[in-house]
Amino acid sequence: MPRPPNPEVRRRLLAAGLDLVHARGFAASGVKDITDAAGVPKGSFYAYFPSKEAFAAAILETYWADIETRLVPILNADGSAQERITRFFHALADDHEAGDFLLGCLIGNLSLELGGSSDQVRAELECILDRWDTALTACVRAGQRGSGDIRGDRDAGELASQLIESWEGAALRGKVTRSRVPYDRFEAVTVPTLLH
Amino acid sequence: MPRPPNPEVRRRLLAAGLDLVHARGFAASGVKDITDAAGVPKGSFYAYFPSKEAFAAAILETYWADIETRLVPILNADGSAQERITRFFHALADDHEAGDFLLGCLIGNLSLELGGSSDQVRAELECILDRWDTALTACVRAGQRGSGDIRGDRDAGELASQLIESWEGAALRGKVTRSRVPYDRFEAVTVPTLLH
Repeated sequence: MPRPPNPEVRRRLLAAGLDLVHARGFAASGVKDITDAAGVPKGSFYAYFPSKEAFAAAILETYWADIETRLVPILNADGSAQERITRFFHALADDHEAGDFLLGCLIGNLSLELGGSSDQVRAELECILDRWDTALTACVRAGQRGSGDIRGDRDAGELASQLIESWEGAALRGKVTRSRVPYDRFEAVTVPTLLH
Repeated sequence: MPRPPNPEVRRRLLAAGLDLVHARGFAASGVKDITDAAGVPKGSFYAYFPSKEAFAAAILETYWADIETRLVPILNADGSAQERITRFFHALADDHEAGDFLLGCLIGNLSLELGGSSDQVRAELECILDRWDTALTACVRAGQRGSGDIRGDRDAGELASQLIESWEGAALRGKVTRSRVPYDRFEAVTVPTLLH
């Protein structure tokens, strides 16, 4: 009789697998590498995830849920809309700096590694990028209507998407240069240029 | 006695390997996959490339040299500087559309897959991004000084880097959404917003 699923095993697989895939990439992280890192038998992987692609979708969900909990609230905190947006991206860049710019954004990494080959991962990525758009759009709209510190002649959703895309590009360059320069450029120049 | 190197074998390895790595990613493309695609014996790979990382650097060089030959001249052609910059990125987006948005930009793909783990590939990527910066900076500077259609209150090199990073982010989103929407947004909104 199969053992009942153990939420702690699933949690360990997700935590250890997220770190591994974030550092090495998806194809370079074997199922055995993931179960070894989690300290569970290799066979248990497929008791929790029907496929390695399903696992990739699950670690993306874990990754974004953490950002939603820790950082997205900054977008709804005090200050002008532009200040909140800048603080949000600054905090994300702090995360990247804490990893010595070796890891980049897991959303960006898997977008480019799997966006062209896995429909399941691509669907998860579209969903996460939409949630990110939605959170930023609300803040941009508040800046257009209320505080008036964001230009009103552009669609709030378009501005939000531009911010996300420009930030992902800055994170990409930051991973290559191993430096905060592209993040700082995004924060100091791209954000005010796009929003004013 | 080892056979003398055959430039045609090297060329086939680069062409077939570039297509494979562009479509599948680096880790997911085995040496045997590459030699099979090139129609050469597996053993010949290491006669031409000391390592798989050296091969990744070589296909990046091939990829960028092709763009330098076909598309970078657009930046030095007729029209205002902003028109030339827009035409250049439009032509790059045409390349991506020709691949049904499944491939993305090889520079971006390998930046995120290998930027954190391979110093050799990272050095090649830094060099390519610098060459891209240099070509765009010259065009931006011409627009600031001559035709005057580009804002003069920002450093030309900073504007060039912002364009490249925002474009890489647009290409990332385009790979996830399998659509030209982020590229069109970059062209219609990001370029004029950053440059004016």
